[in-house]
Amino acid sequence: MENFDFRNPTKIVFGKGTESRVGAETAAYSKKILLHYGSGSIKASGLYGRVTASLKAAGVEWTELGGVVPNPRLSLVREGVRLCKEKGIGLVLAVGGGSVIDSAKAIAMGAVIDGDVWDFYLGKGEPKEALPVGTVLTIPAAGSESSTGTVITNDEGQLKRAVNSDLIYPRFSILNPELCFTLPRFQVACGAADIMAHLMERYFTTVRNVEFTDRLIEATMKTVARQVALVLADQKDYDAWADLMWAGTVAHNNLLNTGRIGDWASHDIEHEISGIYDVAHGAGLAVVFPAWMKHTLETDVDRFAQWAVRVWNVENDFRNPEAVAREGIRRLEAFFRSMGLGTKLGDLKVGTDRLDEMAGKCVGGGRGTVGNFVKLNRAAVRKILELAL
Amino acid sequence: MENFDFRNPTKIVFGKGTESRVGAETAAYSKKILLHYGSGSIKASGLYGRVTASLKAAGVEWTELGGVVPNPRLSLVREGVRLCKEKGIGLVLAVGGGSVIDSAKAIAMGAVIDGDVWDFYLGKGEPKEALPVGTVLTIPAAGSESSTGTVITNDEGQLKRAVNSDLIYPRFSILNPELCFTLPRFQVACGAADIMAHLMERYFTTVRNVEFTDRLIEATMKTVARQVALVLADQKDYDAWADLMWAGTVAHNNLLNTGRIGDWASHDIEHEISGIYDVAHGAGLAVVFPAWMKHTLETDVDRFAQWAVRVWNVENDFRNPEAVAREGIRRLEAFFRSMGLGTKLGDLKVGTDRLDEMAGKCVGGGRGTVGNFVKLNRAAVRKILELAL
Repeated sequence: MENFDFRNPTKIVFGKGTESRVGAETAAYSKKILLHYGSGSIKASGLYGRVTASLKAAGVEWTELGGVVPNPRLSLVREGVRLCKEKGIGLVLAVGGGSVIDSAKAIAMGAVIDGDVWDFYLGKGEPKEALPVGTVLTIPAAGSESSTGTVITNDEGQLKRAVNSDLIYPRFSILNPELCFTLPRFQVACGAADIMAHLMERYFTTVRNVEFTDRLIEATMKTVARQVALVLADQKDYDAWADLMWAGTVAHNNLLNTGRIGDWASHDIEHEISGIYDVAHGAGLAVVFPAWMKHTLETDVDRFAQWAVRVWNVENDFRNPEAVAREGIRRLEAFFRSMGLGTKLGDLKVGTDRLDEMAGKCVGGGRGTVGNFVKLNRAAVRKILELAL
Repeated sequence: MENFDFRNPTKIVFGKGTESRVGAETAAYSKKILLHYGSGSIKASGLYGRVTASLKAAGVEWTELGGVVPNPRLSLVREGVRLCKEKGIGLVLAVGGGSVIDSAKAIAMGAVIDGDVWDFYLGKGEPKEALPVGTVLTIPAAGSESSTGTVITNDEGQLKRAVNSDLIYPRFSILNPELCFTLPRFQVACGAADIMAHLMERYFTTVRNVEFTDRLIEATMKTVARQVALVLADQKDYDAWADLMWAGTVAHNNLLNTGRIGDWASHDIEHEISGIYDVAHGAGLAVVFPAWMKHTLETDVDRFAQWAVRVWNVENDFRNPEAVAREGIRRLEAFFRSMGLGTKLGDLKVGTDRLDEMAGKCVGGGRGTVGNFVKLNRAAVRKILELAL
């Protein structure tokens, strides 16, 4: 096990009706906030009304900025930064999914600096402070509600880049599983794929002797596989949603990579796909991950076999662990397909013409490789994209 | 699943050599501290020298208070409170195990009030503030390094009582598994029993549909059972210690009871035993828990069977879950015995003469019952103590 520091300060407020507490949680930090959201769906669902009623009751004034789209855009972030500075905003409240939260985190970093927040995403300097962020989560997926991460797409140049900083852990996140009852099935599937990907990125490590976190990750993967099947069978199954929603947060709150080094190549590769083609992140991951596995399997067949046996209930074949591992990958693909997701680039309407460009951008920025389980150069990324054809 | 709030603010600094960071972590809060510890063992081991060198290098001045004993005493807490007030102390640094940390938390609450800190333990009022607490943990067991709890024994009257408050989460805890290499085997065993008990208290719940936390707890129980066997076979097995130490923290940091209601009757019963007989807490739990299980098994045979199959690898017998459950209890007893612990009151040299007194004290304080999985009255507690004979 590697040495590590771990501290996750986000307060989770979880359960039925908890959005009614957003005013009190917000007012503890500021009474002048930016209310950030996506499409108008929170208005149609009634959530907007309940949130603003709670803010009003707590004496919180808000400025609104809607319009966040999947793969959230830098242009809207800049608009939010401008509003925060102009109005003297003290907290950014994200009501939505990972895209809204990521956008809110970017605004929170940008609001307190003179320069351009995109510089942080380009690796030029690190944030020294940020406005507090609070969230009301509407979809279990990105884990951004209790993470250090934000991913933003620069509209100019189709670049999708991430920042990680302890400063942008949300101060509070409100999770009411009931809000998931009306999610489109495709979003449910993409969310579950994203959660599973967060777990697999952490699971496939070259760090030895990490049995405890192995088992915690396996427990979370089994939970996700089972509970998403239940919610797709009955979208009003509160308890299944509750398990899935909480698992989505724990999957990405940094507990599960304590003492380990995650891989993250599949995320990097997927970012290139969704940066150009604007596909849903989870849908992209369902395509990239099985291909990544086929490419990296030989690196540590035992680890793949352990995963296949413990998570996917593959019967162990002690004389042929590779066959066990390959059966695990097949079951992962079947899991994605059972939710209605494709597992090939063609399913995303991604053709062969820009594979080179994506591989090049992916290993760009001076790094030369992506991933830790196996370090992948441009040719290896290209090969993984081909395996996904 | 039940609604819940969860936030654990303790910063964990984990790994080889990390005690060298205690000065910097401490100085972030105060440069005038109380250094609290137990017997002189930290001096003999060299840990005291390394900790004080780090404090010195960070410009931190300390006042020392050693002498904490297992089942830490109110009299020493009062001495610590007096010292903190007299010297204007800004942080209590605990270097030791759960007893030292619990004592430090008590001092931290007492140092900022005019009245008597024991009142909080008697349920008269709640703490409104506390000095910050930091820890350097020397034994995986109590979980106090990242918990809200403190248990203190009042020397007058042999009363052992607990306080839980978010105010006494340690601000930082430094965990170096190497410090465990020289622990006496009996302490290792008691620590592992305590960790397992924390997990079982959370596992046995009447709350339905808590599959995710069920699986996380099972993963942690399997880890504890396996890793303690490894460290008892080779006390210098760093990676096994690392897993055991981290599991001990996660077992009790409140993540694993999110959405559930734990039982805690076995802890309450054990507190009466160790309050009178001054036995080690973990050794007491190894006696109480199997007896508690035999008494409560009928309440939810399915849950016990799930535990037996998933944690102890009992082959399921679909037609006879009770037999499966009973085999699970047998394997728990075998686990305790494999570490050299007894599972009967006689092993603790506790006779039959004070069973009534313990049962009475246990359900005293106006509650009338202990436990949540099954509410136990005085007669039921007495029966469990008899089952432990």
